[in-house]
Amino acid sequence: MLSLDKVFNAQTVLKSIIRETNVVRAYGIAPDCELYLKPENLQITGSFKVRGSAYKIAMLSDDEKKRGVIACSAGNHAQGVALAATKNGISSLICLPDSAPISKVEATKGFGAEVCLVEGCSDDAYQKALELRDSKGYTFVHPFDDENVIAGQGTIALEILNELDDIDAIVVPIGGGGLISGIAYTVKQIRPSVKVYGVQAAGAPSMFNSIKNSTIECLPSVSTFADGIAVKKPGENTYAIVKEYVDDIALVSEDEVASAILTLMEKQKMIAEGAGAVAVAAVMFNKFDLKGKRVVAVVSGGNIDITSLSRVVDRGLKNSGRSSSLLIELIDKPGQLKEISRIIADCGGNVTGVHYEKGNTESINGCFLRIEMETRDFDHIKLITKTLRKEGFKIV
Amino acid sequence: MLSLDKVFNAQTVLKSIIRETNVVRAYGIAPDCELYLKPENLQITGSFKVRGSAYKIAMLSDDEKKRGVIACSAGNHAQGVALAATKNGISSLICLPDSAPISKVEATKGFGAEVCLVEGCSDDAYQKALELRDSKGYTFVHPFDDENVIAGQGTIALEILNELDDIDAIVVPIGGGGLISGIAYTVKQIRPSVKVYGVQAAGAPSMFNSIKNSTIECLPSVSTFADGIAVKKPGENTYAIVKEYVDDIALVSEDEVASAILTLMEKQKMIAEGAGAVAVAAVMFNKFDLKGKRVVAVVSGGNIDITSLSRVVDRGLKNSGRSSSLLIELIDKPGQLKEISRIIADCGGNVTGVHYEKGNTESINGCFLRIEMETRDFDHIKLITKTLRKEGFKIV
Repeated sequence: MLSLDKVFNAQTVLKSIIRETNVVRAYGIAPDCELYLKPENLQITGSFKVRGSAYKIAMLSDDEKKRGVIACSAGNHAQGVALAATKNGISSLICLPDSAPISKVEATKGFGAEVCLVEGCSDDAYQKALELRDSKGYTFVHPFDDENVIAGQGTIALEILNELDDIDAIVVPIGGGGLISGIAYTVKQIRPSVKVYGVQAAGAPSMFNSIKNSTIECLPSVSTFADGIAVKKPGENTYAIVKEYVDDIALVSEDEVASAILTLMEKQKMIAEGAGAVAVAAVMFNKFDLKGKRVVAVVSGGNIDITSLSRVVDRGLKNSGRSSSLLIELIDKPGQLKEISRIIADCGGNVTGVHYEKGNTESINGCFLRIEMETRDFDHIKLITKTLRKEGFKIV
Repeated sequence: MLSLDKVFNAQTVLKSIIRETNVVRAYGIAPDCELYLKPENLQITGSFKVRGSAYKIAMLSDDEKKRGVIACSAGNHAQGVALAATKNGISSLICLPDSAPISKVEATKGFGAEVCLVEGCSDDAYQKALELRDSKGYTFVHPFDDENVIAGQGTIALEILNELDDIDAIVVPIGGGGLISGIAYTVKQIRPSVKVYGVQAAGAPSMFNSIKNSTIECLPSVSTFADGIAVKKPGENTYAIVKEYVDDIALVSEDEVASAILTLMEKQKMIAEGAGAVAVAAVMFNKFDLKGKRVVAVVSGGNIDITSLSRVVDRGLKNSGRSSSLLIELIDKPGQLKEISRIIADCGGNVTGVHYEKGNTESINGCFLRIEMETRDFDHIKLITKTLRKEGFKIV
């Protein structure tokens, strides 16, 4: 049984392993409320997950420890288990689908785990982990549906309540529900007036649907770039705790998450992964009634690979008018590019790419010119377009 | 005269204005030493600058306060002065060159300053600020060459010494020298055995040259994307303090800074601007003898616009083999792109761009195909290139 004692005990046990991340006031993200961030992206391993797995592993019996632990994850849980096992001086084996990005495999190995690559998807890796648990006697560390794991995540609530007085609400990402279970349980025991809100990606609404329909549901598939919360089915323990203690759950779109990531980079100089940014996205896009409230959004992790981040940034720059591309239909004659370059430069735009494309233009001597530019905002793009048109260029 | 008393007094005065940024242990950046970061990029306004300007402004006489303050800066100093003035209930006027990015103008206004856009470069804006000081009676807040500003920056050293025992060295960015003057002076008064090292961008080595040649030098021009430390001439006070208290100064290249920014993003989930990353770059690229030492690198700021950051990331991805482009010479016949796409996909590469280009190919029916891809590393690129060649494609 989960108890407040366990959460307090976890806090003591974790002291020498984890980093106590300090709450920071976030200005300029959500002007209607007093927003704070709990930056678990700055946690060691780059995610809160290490709290739960480290407490779970510390509580194992000597016999269980001797046999080593096994887990299945392509992400933050893997790194948490690996680090926690290593710090406890025991061996760990992590099953990953062979499609897992090399960077995550390397990071997991870097924290001292042995890695078992399993052909197929994460369900296959999960099955393999259960098989190895049964055949080799490893102790399985569940990523969320385990009371000690949940107690470990609950230490986040103790830190928040210790740092901030009089908060009105905590907003928390939900994947399998381990994080929000720990936080909601702890908060409601200590300060029941504080609201606890959960957030899922619209493409992976497993807990949202289950709570709505009052029964644990398993999604046939999930689709979100917030891979840390792309979970098909809530846990039994976590479902029960969320049902009892969580005040509301909302969904956020992929674009809302991308926008939250970009905002965290610009305003807070912090990198969040997709899953880590959903709570901030929910606050930014007013999914709950938080006007005038003192609110903490949990930024649960920062492990996003740079390639994905680069795409999020590109999308964000386009969405805010800071990068754009124009397709111009031209008669192919000398001096056209020079003229277009001059107009764009005079308007203060910065050309970053030029491509000639053949195509079905009106004139047989025509071609298309695609210009990529850095611009200031949508008004700036309009100015450039208008000026080009005034000078006789045909923008498609 | 600068004194330790002033630095302690600044700490008290600043308590209600600034954020005490907590030192974080940075794993995996510099394996040879025990590296900590002082994350002033997480400071309000995104930079340490607010410390100096807020202390300076707080120490003004009532008469000076009544007349308001003026400063000249396109960056972090502007925001620091604006916020500090607003918090002290006095007016501020910031002169910026009219070429300053809109985002910085808006941020400065956002902290409550009035903005005066001056035609020309930052030297022109500086002259205008001095003019307005003389004609209108504003108090000028110098960005670095002022003892109260320096005392404000020195509070960073107090925080570091308070948080960490037994450190061996602190590594600090140098622009005009205000930050390192405050830190070096304070550290050497309290714990003289701690080494203080300075870092400049190779394209703006004003303090480096001045110290080397034992006289204050003014560079004819500076060239670095680390705009926060692109300073042509050290201050008189800062030169004297650096000469007396700083143990060594090193230079870092643009690529080293870009690499440090990318590493801070990946390993620490933090965004640093160019100037903010030079100390980390110096540690990463072994500019000082820090083997086995306990070292603090000051990450002085995080105000980099997303467009620039996006370029740094692109460069970093290319430099580490995670994005690449191939130019393939083709005979223009059906099915070529299909075949190339199949080979790249089979090798695990991800095509992100395709451009046909006419050009001077061997065959008159030839063309060039430029393929942009996401790849894992340089070995992965080699594998793809080798496989394409084996299947008969000509890579230029």
